[in-house]
Amino acid sequence: MNIALVLRLLSVILLVESASMVPSAIIAAFHRDGDLVPLLASIGIILAVALPIYLLVKPKDRSLRAREGFVVVALSWILMSVFGALPFVFGRFLPNYVDALFEAVSGFTTTGATVLTDFTNMPHGLVFWRSFTHWVGGMGVLVLTLALLPKLSDRTSHLVRAESPGPSLSKIVPKMGDSAKILYLMYTVLTVAEFMILMLCGLNPYDAAIHAMGTAGTGGFSNYGDSVAHFHSVSVDITMTVFMVLFGINFAIYYFLINRSWHDLKANEEIRWYLGLVFGAMLLLTVLLLPYYHTFSTSLRYASFQVASIISTSGFATADFDLWPVSAKMVLFVLLFIGSCAGSTAGGMKIIRVALMLKEGKREIHRTFQPRKVQIVRFDGKGIDESMLHSIAVFSFVYVALVLFGSFLIALEGKYDLITNFTAALTCVSNVGPGFHFVGPSGNFAGYGPFAKIVCSFLMLAGRLELYPLLLLFHPAIWRKT
Amino acid sequence: MNIALVLRLLSVILLVESASMVPSAIIAAFHRDGDLVPLLASIGIILAVALPIYLLVKPKDRSLRAREGFVVVALSWILMSVFGALPFVFGRFLPNYVDALFEAVSGFTTTGATVLTDFTNMPHGLVFWRSFTHWVGGMGVLVLTLALLPKLSDRTSHLVRAESPGPSLSKIVPKMGDSAKILYLMYTVLTVAEFMILMLCGLNPYDAAIHAMGTAGTGGFSNYGDSVAHFHSVSVDITMTVFMVLFGINFAIYYFLINRSWHDLKANEEIRWYLGLVFGAMLLLTVLLLPYYHTFSTSLRYASFQVASIISTSGFATADFDLWPVSAKMVLFVLLFIGSCAGSTAGGMKIIRVALMLKEGKREIHRTFQPRKVQIVRFDGKGIDESMLHSIAVFSFVYVALVLFGSFLIALEGKYDLITNFTAALTCVSNVGPGFHFVGPSGNFAGYGPFAKIVCSFLMLAGRLELYPLLLLFHPAIWRKT
Repeated sequence: MNIALVLRLLSVILLVESASMVPSAIIAAFHRDGDLVPLLASIGIILAVALPIYLLVKPKDRSLRAREGFVVVALSWILMSVFGALPFVFGRFLPNYVDALFEAVSGFTTTGATVLTDFTNMPHGLVFWRSFTHWVGGMGVLVLTLALLPKLSDRTSHLVRAESPGPSLSKIVPKMGDSAKILYLMYTVLTVAEFMILMLCGLNPYDAAIHAMGTAGTGGFSNYGDSVAHFHSVSVDITMTVFMVLFGINFAIYYFLINRSWHDLKANEEIRWYLGLVFGAMLLLTVLLLPYYHTFSTSLRYASFQVASIISTSGFATADFDLWPVSAKMVLFVLLFIGSCAGSTAGGMKIIRVALMLKEGKREIHRTFQPRKVQIVRFDGKGIDESMLHSIAVFSFVYVALVLFGSFLIALEGKYDLITNFTAALTCVSNVGPGFHFVGPSGNFAGYGPFAKIVCSFLMLAGRLELYPLLLLFHPAIWRKT
Repeated sequence: MNIALVLRLLSVILLVESASMVPSAIIAAFHRDGDLVPLLASIGIILAVALPIYLLVKPKDRSLRAREGFVVVALSWILMSVFGALPFVFGRFLPNYVDALFEAVSGFTTTGATVLTDFTNMPHGLVFWRSFTHWVGGMGVLVLTLALLPKLSDRTSHLVRAESPGPSLSKIVPKMGDSAKILYLMYTVLTVAEFMILMLCGLNPYDAAIHAMGTAGTGGFSNYGDSVAHFHSVSVDITMTVFMVLFGINFAIYYFLINRSWHDLKANEEIRWYLGLVFGAMLLLTVLLLPYYHTFSTSLRYASFQVASIISTSGFATADFDLWPVSAKMVLFVLLFIGSCAGSTAGGMKIIRVALMLKEGKREIHRTFQPRKVQIVRFDGKGIDESMLHSIAVFSFVYVALVLFGSFLIALEGKYDLITNFTAALTCVSNVGPGFHFVGPSGNFAGYGPFAKIVCSFLMLAGRLELYPLLLLFHPAIWRKT
C-alpha cells in the first residue's frame, strides 16, 4: 500500500470538500440564521486536518494501483461524510453526531433518507449544505477533484472507476481529466435548466435550488416535511418528473447528443430498456392507482412522479405511497431494486445489469434443453464477455445478500416490523431514500437507534460505490503486505 | 419432440399415481368417513385416462433427449397435481377445484401451504392422501417410477436430473434404477423410524404416520389446525426437530455412512455448511427469543424446532412465530431463501448454491483489487468449474426475480399487505409452507382468490423442480420443431 499517495489524495479531496462548503457559508451569511459560524468552523477544522498533510506528505511514487484506487475512494467517502456532518452538529441542527453523520452520508450518497423530524425554522445555510452534498455526491467528489486537478496522480482511471463503476462513464474522451470536466459541465447545465424552470413554476430561488440539486444528484432531500407535495403544483410535479427521468440517463447519451453521434446513440441499448421500463411502469402504476385516485389524470400525475422518483432513486414524494393499494406498492417495491442507467447519478443495481441478467436467465432456461448450443448474450449489438456476465450475476447476489444481512442487523435493534427494516436496508443500498411503513414517505429514520443508523450509513455508502469498494475494507487480503 | 415417448412416460407416471392412492383408500375403507368412494372414483378416472394411452401408444424411438426429459418432468408434475386434486373435490373436502389443486400441488411439492380453515371432522382417507403426496413428492414420483420400472426408457438420467436437480443424487451407483431403489429404501427406513419414535412419544398410529410423512418429504401438512403445537409434547418437538434436520441432509451422506465411505463423507463440504447453519441459526434464534420466552430451555425448544422446520423447508410450527420479535422473524425470513442440502427432500435455493455464491462474492471482492490473480473457488476440496459457478449465480438471480414477479402477480388481487404477498411467493418457491402475517403459522392461503392460488401453485411447482423445468414451458424454442 502506497500510504503517502493515499494520504495525499485524501487530503486533496478534503480540501475540495472544504471549498464546497463555501457556497453554503455565503448563503448562511446572507440569511443570518446563526449557521455561518458552524460552517466556517467546519471549514477551519477540515483545513487544519487536510492542509498539513497536503503540504508535508509528498509521495515519491505517484502511480496508483487498483488497490490504492479502491482504498482511496472508500476512505474518501467515509471521511467526507465524517467531516461533512460537522456543520449539522455545530449548528445544533442535528446535535447528535450519529444523526448528523447519517444525514451527511445520506446526502453524499444521494439517498435522501433523513432523520429530520422538525422542518420548521431550518437554518438556510445548513439546509443548503445538506442539499449541496447531493449535488456533489451525485456526479462524484473524485470526479469533481479530477475536473479541478487533472494531474493529481498517474493512472487516475482507477479512482473514477471505483467511484462511478458504470461501464461507460470514464470513456467519453481519452483523457480522464477532460471527461470529468465535460461531465460536470453537462451536469451543471442540466441543473441550472431545472433551477430556472422551477422558478418559472413559481418557486422562490432557494426552494428551486434545493430541489434542483436534489433532482440532479437523484438525492431527494427537500426542505419541507411533505417533500414536493408541499407545492401543490402540477407544473412543479411535471418538471421534476421529467428531470428525474433525465438525471437517470447515462451522461454519455447527452455527450452523444451534443456531438450528434447518432450511431453511438442508436447502438445504446440501455436507454431503450430504461425508457421502456420508465413508461411501462408509469402506465402500469396509473392503471393500478385508478381505483384510488378515480380520474386518469390524477392517477397519471402521482404514478408518473413516483415511478420517476423511485427508478431514478431520487426518493421525492408527492403522495404517501404507503397508503396506496398493495399492488401499486409492489410495483414500487420491485423498482426499489433496479435503479437507473449506469453512468447516471442514480443508484440501484442499474438497468444494464438487470437487463443482462434477464437475458442470461432466458439463456439459462434455453440451455437446459439445448445444452450444446452456443448462445451469446448480446447488448448494444455486441456479444458480451462471459466473465463480465459472470461478475454481474455475482454482483446481483451480493446486492441481495447485503440487503438481507443489513436488514437483519437493523432488526437486531428490535424496532419496527419486518417490512420497515427490510425496505430501510433496501432503500439505503439502492440510494433511494424512503421505504415503506415507518420509513415511508410520511416517516423517517429518526426512530432508529445509533446502531441501525450506522448500519444504514454503511449500506448507503456501499450502495453508492457499487458494493465492492466498501466491502473490500473488510477483506483481510487488502491490508496484507504485498 | 418425441410425442409418443412423452405420452407413454406420462401415462406410466399417472398409473403409479393411481397405485399410490390405494393406501389412502384402504385407510378410508377402515375409518368409514365417506371418503372411500371419492378415492376409488379418482383412481378409476386416472386409470380410464392413462391405461388406454399406456396400452395404445408404443414409441418406436425409446431414447430420451434432455428436451423431452424436462417436458415429461414438468408435465407429469402438473398432471399429477391435476388428478391428485380429484379426491378432495369428490369428497367435498375442498369442493372448489382451484382449492383442491392448490392443496395437491402444495402436497406433491412438499410445500405444506394450505387453504384448509376447518380442521374438525376431517375424513381420514383424504387427509392421509393429502400427507401421502408429501411422502411421494419428497423423493420424487419419477424416482419412484424408476425404482419400480428401471427399464422405462433409455437415458432415464435426464428424467431424474430434471426432477431432482441436486448435483449428487443421481450418482450413488452407476445404474439409475438401482440408485432409485436405494434412495427409496433409505427414505422408507428413515420414515418408519420416525413413525415408531413418534408412537413411542404417545401419538396414535394415524397422527404418527401423518407427521412422519410430512417430515420425510419436508412437507409440513398436519391434521391439526395448530400443527405440532397441538401435541404439547417436548418429546414430539425434539423428535421432529431431529428428523427435520435429518431429512434436510443429502441422501448420499446416508449411503456413504452405510457403506462406511469415510473418505467421501469427509470430503463432503455441504454437510458441514448445513450443520453449521442449522446449529448457528438455532443458537442465534435462542438468544434472540430469550426476552420473549424468558427461560433458555423454552427458548431453545421453540427456536430449534422452527429453525429446523424452515431450513428443512418443512413448515411445521410449534409457535406462532409471527408474534416473535422482529429480529427473530428476520432470521427466519433469511432462512426462507436458503433451504437444505441438494439431494435431500428439501426445497429452497440449497445450501451448496448459497455457500458457493458466498465464496464467489468473497472472490469478486478480492478480484477488484487483485484483478490479475487467478483465484479458483473450491468445494469438497476440488476446484469448481467456472461455467457451473456462472450458472449458479444466474440461478440465484432467477430465483429472486421469480419471487418478486410472483409476489407482484399475487398482489394484483389487491389482498393483504406487502409482507404477506412477498412471503407467500417466497414460501411457495422455497416449498416451505408458512410465511408471515396472513399466511403465517396461524393463517393460511384460503383468503386468496383463484388467480393468486394458481400463481402460488405455479411457484410451488417451479420451486420444487428448481425453476427451469417449469419455466422452459414458456420458452418459445421448446415448442419449435428441430
